[in-house]
Amino acid sequence: MKAIIVTKPFNIQISDVPDPMIQQPDDVIIRVTSGGICGSDIGIWNGTNSLATYPRLIGHEFGGIVEETGPAVTGIKPGDKVAVDPVISCGHCYACRIGRHNVCSSLEVMGVHRDGGFAEYVKAPAQNIHKFHTDFSESLLGLAEPFTIGMQVNNRAQISAADNVLVMGAGPIGITVMEVAKSRGARVMMTDLVPERLEKARSFGADETVLVSEENLEARVGLFTGGEGAPVIVDTVCQPFSFAQAVHLACPAGRIVVLSLKDTPAELIQAEVTKKELSILGSRLNCNCFDEVIDSFENGSLHPEHLMTHTRHFTEIEAALDEICNHPQNVLKTVLHFS
Amino acid sequence: MKAIIVTKPFNIQISDVPDPMIQQPDDVIIRVTSGGICGSDIGIWNGTNSLATYPRLIGHEFGGIVEETGPAVTGIKPGDKVAVDPVISCGHCYACRIGRHNVCSSLEVMGVHRDGGFAEYVKAPAQNIHKFHTDFSESLLGLAEPFTIGMQVNNRAQISAADNVLVMGAGPIGITVMEVAKSRGARVMMTDLVPERLEKARSFGADETVLVSEENLEARVGLFTGGEGAPVIVDTVCQPFSFAQAVHLACPAGRIVVLSLKDTPAELIQAEVTKKELSILGSRLNCNCFDEVIDSFENGSLHPEHLMTHTRHFTEIEAALDEICNHPQNVLKTVLHFS
Repeated sequence: MKAIIVTKPFNIQISDVPDPMIQQPDDVIIRVTSGGICGSDIGIWNGTNSLATYPRLIGHEFGGIVEETGPAVTGIKPGDKVAVDPVISCGHCYACRIGRHNVCSSLEVMGVHRDGGFAEYVKAPAQNIHKFHTDFSESLLGLAEPFTIGMQVNNRAQISAADNVLVMGAGPIGITVMEVAKSRGARVMMTDLVPERLEKARSFGADETVLVSEENLEARVGLFTGGEGAPVIVDTVCQPFSFAQAVHLACPAGRIVVLSLKDTPAELIQAEVTKKELSILGSRLNCNCFDEVIDSFENGSLHPEHLMTHTRHFTEIEAALDEICNHPQNVLKTVLHFS
Repeated sequence: MKAIIVTKPFNIQISDVPDPMIQQPDDVIIRVTSGGICGSDIGIWNGTNSLATYPRLIGHEFGGIVEETGPAVTGIKPGDKVAVDPVISCGHCYACRIGRHNVCSSLEVMGVHRDGGFAEYVKAPAQNIHKFHTDFSESLLGLAEPFTIGMQVNNRAQISAADNVLVMGAGPIGITVMEVAKSRGARVMMTDLVPERLEKARSFGADETVLVSEENLEARVGLFTGGEGAPVIVDTVCQPFSFAQAVHLACPAGRIVVLSLKDTPAELIQAEVTKKELSILGSRLNCNCFDEVIDSFENGSLHPEHLMTHTRHFTEIEAALDEICNHPQNVLKTVLHFS
């Protein structure tokens, strides 16, 4: 079969690799129909993703149609439309024992630490396979994973209908965070530097948007929250300055979600954390979010079609990467088709 | 009546002030029997507590015997032994609405923002009065409040019997955190620079202690947790270096409790927060912890007598402050008597 392989930084190829075969009794083989390109795929391509090793069959956002199942697999059969959770965990470490397998101490993510899903076929354990219940669009099966990122953020911050949420950054992660928060009844304000991104955010349901290059965010947050400050802030900008601003803008008892993978130190005034009794919460990947995302796709409360601004055949991966890197403000998500 | 007043930094007096009188229907007047001296009282005395205004009748750790109640007060009667929650909140702001009144946006703490309990009599609203149900020692009634600090930390970090807890610093806050964690069944490791403090910690129930001037804390945490890292770290050292160390020592899915009121910036590597999906949790004062602390005093699972290393008549306040400031390693808590 054909697969997208990054052999080393800046070298990406469509390669012939062996078809996956059932080896474990719980193995499932899927014919991939669609995959989303994520910033961390870009990072593997350009050598800035410190977690990846090479060569790597990339892709952790993918879904498709079940082709074959191992003898121990129940509840999944050939022909089922599915999305694949790329998180592989040990089941024994502290994080796994308390139900937080997404930060397993020997975590492996398909497409990052081990081979992923940008291929015509992929094999994954049955417990990582999540079924659609309707005849959902093949193009959108690969977009469950990015929405699980947004749902994990909502779960970490316990976002509910009572909350006014500030989402800093209207890129793909910000959009999924906003859509999940809206589906829970929260009010959401989004920021960005790019007016077109904010227009999209509003059209997808954001209650208010702030063009931070021209508007005073603190004043807008004050108006948005009746002067109280923001009870929930999700920082998808991921810079030291945005983190410091989040700590400043949070109201007492506020929650701040951190998604940055940057090693640059941010400054934290501990007195602000204590006096406001803030919760600063890392959010990584997802923990048991796939089924809820799929249900929400199917009942119309989440909209993967919003995210899919561009599509390409998987053999056009180099053109897709160029488009994302040269026009990042235009692309929310490029979906690769594997038909 | 007599009361301890700080008129300005470094000027503390035993003054004659008017006896409190019932004015609101829910007022309760208490004859104070004991009060604990806290670091923040020292801060008001030496001018380093940024929250205080002068002159101030200090004292936020206090308890005593009910003398008189307003006409609307039920469930509390003269003669009851009680402790007083010094936290006064508005009931309307975001934090109050979600049940986090201890970080009310217009918070006032008795003895800090308004007059406190180091006096022969004190008045407080009935909702701030918490009753003992046994004939508990008059000397110890004032020590419920510091244990509520330790319980709030345990609540913020959701410490349970499954947890290995690292408490950095074996001062009075560290000891109350440890005792509450032990009462919940957790294993607790404590650190300090003073061997005598660690001896006390062990005698009060700490499972392990680390003299950080001589031992490698990271190695000890590794042994303590089977190499996994610490799932819960409570930083009562409250310095930028201790915060950075806590982030480093925490295991995936770990919780770090911050109590520092320092404005000096600490450095935070956001990638560590995200990759380990840490929760960094401020903890301030207490939120509805008094009744559980009192029950735990009475059933013997918490030990206020451990904390009371020194006692003084309240008229000896200057000698007490000198003793604390000149021999901090000897004093866990000085309890003032008001009889």
